Amino acid sequence: MLHKKQNISFFFSPKSIAIIGSSPTAGKISYVILKSLRNIGFQGEIYPVNPKYKSIDDLKCYNSVSEIGKNIDLAVIAVPAPLVLDSLKDAGKKAKGAIIISAGFGEAGKEGRKMEDGIKEIAKETGIRVMGPNCMGVYDTVSMVDTFFVPAERMGRPGKGVISILSQSGSFASLIMDELALEGIGVSRVVSYGNRVDVGESDCLEFLAGDDNTKAVAIYMESVDDGRRFVEAAARCAKKKPVLAIKVGKRGAGISAAKSHTGAMTGMYKIYRAAFMKAGIIEIDGYEGLKDACRALNIFKPVKGRKVLIITDGGGIGVRISDACEEMGLDVAALPETLQKRLSVKFPAYYGINNPMDLTGSVTNEEYLTAIADGLKDNYDMAIVALLWGPPKLSEGLVDRLAETIRRVKKPALICSPGGTFTKRMNRAFEEKGIPVFSSPESAARAAAVLTKG
Amino acid sequence: MLHKKQNISFFFSPKSIAIIGSSPTAGKISYVILKSLRNIGFQGEIYPVNPKYKSIDDLKCYNSVSEIGKNIDLAVIAVPAPLVLDSLKDAGKKAKGAIIISAGFGEAGKEGRKMEDGIKEIAKETGIRVMGPNCMGVYDTVSMVDTFFVPAERMGRPGKGVISILSQSGSFASLIMDELALEGIGVSRVVSYGNRVDVGESDCLEFLAGDDNTKAVAIYMESVDDGRRFVEAAARCAKKKPVLAIKVGKRGAGISAAKSHTGAMTGMYKIYRAAFMKAGIIEIDGYEGLKDACRALNIFKPVKGRKVLIITDGGGIGVRISDACEEMGLDVAALPETLQKRLSVKFPAYYGINNPMDLTGSVTNEEYLTAIADGLKDNYDMAIVALLWGPPKLSEGLVDRLAETIRRVKKPALICSPGGTFTKRMNRAFEEKGIPVFSSPESAARAAAVLTKG
Repeated sequence: MLHKKQNISFFFSPKSIAIIGSSPTAGKISYVILKSLRNIGFQGEIYPVNPKYKSIDDLKCYNSVSEIGKNIDLAVIAVPAPLVLDSLKDAGKKAKGAIIISAGFGEAGKEGRKMEDGIKEIAKETGIRVMGPNCMGVYDTVSMVDTFFVPAERMGRPGKGVISILSQSGSFASLIMDELALEGIGVSRVVSYGNRVDVGESDCLEFLAGDDNTKAVAIYMESVDDGRRFVEAAARCAKKKPVLAIKVGKRGAGISAAKSHTGAMTGMYKIYRAAFMKAGIIEIDGYEGLKDACRALNIFKPVKGRKVLIITDGGGIGVRISDACEEMGLDVAALPETLQKRLSVKFPAYYGINNPMDLTGSVTNEEYLTAIADGLKDNYDMAIVALLWGPPKLSEGLVDRLAETIRRVKKPALICSPGGTFTKRMNRAFEEKGIPVFSSPESAARAAAVLTKG
Repeated sequence: MLHKKQNISFFFSPKSIAIIGSSPTAGKISYVILKSLRNIGFQGEIYPVNPKYKSIDDLKCYNSVSEIGKNIDLAVIAVPAPLVLDSLKDAGKKAKGAIIISAGFGEAGKEGRKMEDGIKEIAKETGIRVMGPNCMGVYDTVSMVDTFFVPAERMGRPGKGVISILSQSGSFASLIMDELALEGIGVSRVVSYGNRVDVGESDCLEFLAGDDNTKAVAIYMESVDDGRRFVEAAARCAKKKPVLAIKVGKRGAGISAAKSHTGAMTGMYKIYRAAFMKAGIIEIDGYEGLKDACRALNIFKPVKGRKVLIITDGGGIGVRISDACEEMGLDVAALPETLQKRLSVKFPAYYGINNPMDLTGSVTNEEYLTAIADGLKDNYDMAIVALLWGPPKLSEGLVDRLAETIRRVKKPALICSPGGTFTKRMNRAFEEKGIPVFSSPESAARAAAVLTKG
């Protein structure tokens, strides 16, 4: 790490961006980046740089960064690997930061590692901060920056949200963005920092700790660069907002794959677990867990306790959710007698007024609202509402009223609705109201577990 | 258990069905059942029974089963709980089997348990075999029977497939059918046997063991009735085809919920695990695992070994799949030198010719086909192909060619494609070609694990 604790906000809210290796050819990485910046509505200056062209689209194209004649915040470098060092030297004269998109460095072998040393030297000499190489860079819905080079038709861009995601892997960052976009879940800032010769997870955590636009941080990591600094940065951030991590490269084949992938040692998984615990990081198990966490944290604030009330109209699914919750360390606490009494005068005798609460196939819209409002009033920290659309008295009007009730109770109430065509349509209706829906018992339990670690 | 080892095939391929408590009122359970039978195209006789009506739709309605004047195979009883015993007595005179849909028995308390004793007595006296009460009954794509009372607009019906599903929980059976229908995955026979006063998992396993239309069996269980008989029946079935089980009600709250739900003791989870092991049952962890298993077993035959080759164009996702596979007990074995040499003359030097095999963002359609065909030739039992649609040289034409290659290699090759709109469209294209796609690293690994336990 070259410049510890320097503010790196210019990566997230640059006023000007040079694209080095810019090209007017559709399909070229540098052209996709130009399009990405324009599609998202980047408001600053964009300077294409390539001696081969006079202009690209309607923008003047420069021979070099030096030629631009102004200081710029960010240079995005998308040239073949052998040209990267010269481009970075040029950028270093004018730019505060560089994102090196180009691949073919540490991950490609000895020659590549030598070039990475070269990058470090230039950074030291010129003071420029470097993200990458072999990365996607920054996607930012606050300042409207997008350096991801996958075209919009292949990868959706999520709207504005409150979760920021840090990822060594560019493919991982792209995938999760694409899925979140499809599901209408927003993000705040996403960073893919690739081979991490300079800027890495710790710099980003320091920035995000003080970022009011970020309410939770999720990190996909194969390795860390500086363990001690990481634990410090993560601990500071975790005091203010939930910090989640997926550690990959845990075992045999995974470890060596991660090593060849970004050229970094993944280290012993046990050491990571201890570090996560020390820093107050919530460990997430895999890609599914990350999606569940994003879905939950996008809407609900974490709670202090871990008492979960399960409400359902399908006994079997209630039992499976109960198991899954207990496997995740949640407390499916028995219904207190007072609540049992209160509900037993409102519900038919054959309803299961327990936890899980089985409202059976006879349930009405109204009874679901009652169960949630009464159930979450005093005794539980959150609810999982396993709403199956089989009961004939449930009507589509339930969506609006349930969404309203969930907002009013001011505790997380996670809807869990597995199912087919009709259910999926209802789920979309909930999501349009800003209420996330979980499609399996396991998914709802994973989300609930994240919310109880606030 | 009243009649051990009796052939119960009349539940699955009845030539005639009486619906007791039949009603012409849309929305009534008995009317939905009549509709379900007609929608699926049941070819046998249907006899509505209800003294209140002369005819229902275009069918003559009978005062009682006795009045029908012929022996019938199956009586479906959908009357209020207090009328069930009389209806069953009547059915017992003419019918081989009865499915008691009605709820309000063991799950509702002491009175209900007494009525269940009554059911057992009638069964003993008349020799009628009983499924239920508090169940959905049978969905069968071989003989075209459907006694599920959720209307088609709320719950899709899967097409013809090779997996049979046994479930104590009706909601669980309905949900999985609804999801499989949406995803185009077929089933052979589905049984929801509810409170199981007579016919249960062991009877069904005995039938399914000899059923050529069933290539795999999945059981959702809260409890078993007769442990020894279950282990024997499951072991016999598991010798011929994979038998999977999800045990719910594993822990504290889950156990008591399962108990109140179907009125059965869920017992110690440890004992179940030992029984599963003895019987050769593959234990599945939850609802997600069941879906993954159905998706995989619908197309691929289980293999003997557990060596998995991971092929991807996204390094990060490859690492996560590798971790997930090892967590599931699979062997992500290193690429043998011969294979490495063979591929290194076909692929650029910067591809990661290892396991996981990282074809990078430069991959072409052709290279994916090569990797699968060469990779699965000798050394591996199956592949997970983590196809991300970011690489610009991948075109939609890959779907057809990859589907063809997967068919040709004659080993399971599971496609894993997380992603958004574009990816989901490609996934549907694969599924139309009969190739299942898994949407997360974890899901692909769970499916691979099921296939290695053949």
